[in-house]
Amino acid sequence: MKKLETIQQYLTDHQTDAAFVTTPDNIFYLSGFSSDPHERLLGVMIFKDAEPFIVCPLMEVPDVKAAGWKFETVGYEDTDDAWEFVKTATDRKLSDLKSLAIEKSHLTVERLEKIEELFSNAGISRLDEQLNAMRNIKDENELTLLREAAALADYAIEVACENIAEGVSELELQTAIELALKKRGVQKMSFDTTVLSGTKTASPHGTPGDRKIQKGDFVLMDLGVVHKGYCSDITRTVSFGDPSAEQLSIYEAVRFANQAAIDLVKPGVRASELDYAAREVITKAGYGEYFTHRLGHGLGISVHEFPSIHGANDFQLEEGMVFTIEPGIYNSEITGVRIEDDVVVTKDGVEVMTKFPKELKIIK
Amino acid sequence: MKKLETIQQYLTDHQTDAAFVTTPDNIFYLSGFSSDPHERLLGVMIFKDAEPFIVCPLMEVPDVKAAGWKFETVGYEDTDDAWEFVKTATDRKLSDLKSLAIEKSHLTVERLEKIEELFSNAGISRLDEQLNAMRNIKDENELTLLREAAALADYAIEVACENIAEGVSELELQTAIELALKKRGVQKMSFDTTVLSGTKTASPHGTPGDRKIQKGDFVLMDLGVVHKGYCSDITRTVSFGDPSAEQLSIYEAVRFANQAAIDLVKPGVRASELDYAAREVITKAGYGEYFTHRLGHGLGISVHEFPSIHGANDFQLEEGMVFTIEPGIYNSEITGVRIEDDVVVTKDGVEVMTKFPKELKIIK
Repeated sequence: MKKLETIQQYLTDHQTDAAFVTTPDNIFYLSGFSSDPHERLLGVMIFKDAEPFIVCPLMEVPDVKAAGWKFETVGYEDTDDAWEFVKTATDRKLSDLKSLAIEKSHLTVERLEKIEELFSNAGISRLDEQLNAMRNIKDENELTLLREAAALADYAIEVACENIAEGVSELELQTAIELALKKRGVQKMSFDTTVLSGTKTASPHGTPGDRKIQKGDFVLMDLGVVHKGYCSDITRTVSFGDPSAEQLSIYEAVRFANQAAIDLVKPGVRASELDYAAREVITKAGYGEYFTHRLGHGLGISVHEFPSIHGANDFQLEEGMVFTIEPGIYNSEITGVRIEDDVVVTKDGVEVMTKFPKELKIIK
Repeated sequence: MKKLETIQQYLTDHQTDAAFVTTPDNIFYLSGFSSDPHERLLGVMIFKDAEPFIVCPLMEVPDVKAAGWKFETVGYEDTDDAWEFVKTATDRKLSDLKSLAIEKSHLTVERLEKIEELFSNAGISRLDEQLNAMRNIKDENELTLLREAAALADYAIEVACENIAEGVSELELQTAIELALKKRGVQKMSFDTTVLSGTKTASPHGTPGDRKIQKGDFVLMDLGVVHKGYCSDITRTVSFGDPSAEQLSIYEAVRFANQAAIDLVKPGVRASELDYAAREVITKAGYGEYFTHRLGHGLGISVHEFPSIHGANDFQLEEGMVFTIEPGIYNSEITGVRIEDDVVVTKDGVEVMTKFPKELKIIK
């Protein structure tokens, strides 16, 4: 529970009595317990000078323990006032709460009013930036799960390539991919699996439909899984039949852009430099106007989290940051191509977690 | 835009200058525009004495107009401060905002602080209950969409029955159902499609797996679609091969419980009476301890919304309320059975929107 100790240290440094965390992703991060409580109250109360507790619906108490939570778990029933339980459990640890840190970008006004009513002496401060900073740097255990999630994404692309054939529709291919993953125990995709073919590949947010794959198409697959709470996100674009010279030229520009950005990754480099390097390759190839989005996004418990990799983001990379590198060219007359990898910044460089080859795959 | 006028009337009655709505479901309800803005600001500002505006990311402005929004749309870019745009657009309508209603159960503390900074003279009040009350009663247009969503759920059950065969796994059946719906243009299920077989049917929240369907199994399907923004939710349980006497007895108890509750539905009846009627049938049949959840939940833009139908809920039914009726018996030694319909309270009774037959279907 090193993460909880880090929060306690933060509370000590900022002379704050306690922190109340209610974002499900952050609760999972701190406790290992994953749940979507919908309207019900779920929270972790962390004290500067006492052991923490989790408050949750009574029926979830066994799951909290099964998730490895070693401290107090306060369960309430639907007919109880959950906040009274928070108050009582807090009072047992600390008779007069004078300062409380919360997630202001998540906690609702209604809940703040409840907290202010129960703990009327407590000054309220933000915990958001501290949690974001912690989640921004992955530890070894998190990296292991992210690698496993990436391997499942690689497998999904393999399955897709095996199922591409004349007359197979985008929806059928999407279904074949997801079924194969379910059979490997994947219970949740990190977002709706994208399969696009022909010039539909030129729509960065297109949705799969009845269009049937035909010779001469590029086929773009963008997908990821949630594995033990951690997400992957991969894109590959393959050719069904021999590509035209223009298709090939677009593909190679994206591939070199992806590689140019990857080659730069190491601690100390600025995020904007990666975006610039990829964009420069594509611009020099004559496709600059068709690369219409940022280079990448952070990846972890959420499929979009810190850090964001774009041209206006000047922070320096640090060891343990995980993000996507996904340049694309979207020319609706010819084709769209995107190639996306999940990478982690290592001590002196980069590890690419998604391993599916990036040389243009031609499916006959 | 009758709904906007209802909000304006509410503002007049409560002497409130304006309301700012930021919940995506409520924005869709009021404007017809559906979007998940993630971290970005999306809101509808409604004035007591002026025309409303929507604030949204610039790239979504055309979609807002395409959704039928006839008033001002304020678009901002990622590099802008969206709140400055809210302030400027508001000042154009009303130079000194003195009172503002917000959704306290949704708006974050961070956003409230921003509002208090920009509109420092404004008293803040709740709009939540007013919006819930409005959404609780569906109009004719909403009922049409809910009927269409229910028809697609019926179709899904048909597809499921056609695909049940010896050795087909739960996951394969789930996949066949979802593929058939996708081919009918369904882009989103209202929740993960449940397919359970054998004694797995006795788990109210079980997840489909590799288990293969075999003769003598009951197969339970629980699913729904999102259709033009509105949800359906159906459960049917069928028999693969001839049922045992005990399976049949459990099935009939659930079927009669479902019908007993439906037969009671009309304006003026209390929600708790429905729950009681269904529970009484099941208890008299000797299975009372195995009916472990509430009778049903409201249905509309969300798959779980008001009204909740359980024994402690004493409100009276009103014309236009839409909810599920879904009694179940979960006996892990024999089988689980649940039968779920979507119903709407009519002027003098009930309309059952899900039409798939409820006599036990035996698949040979």
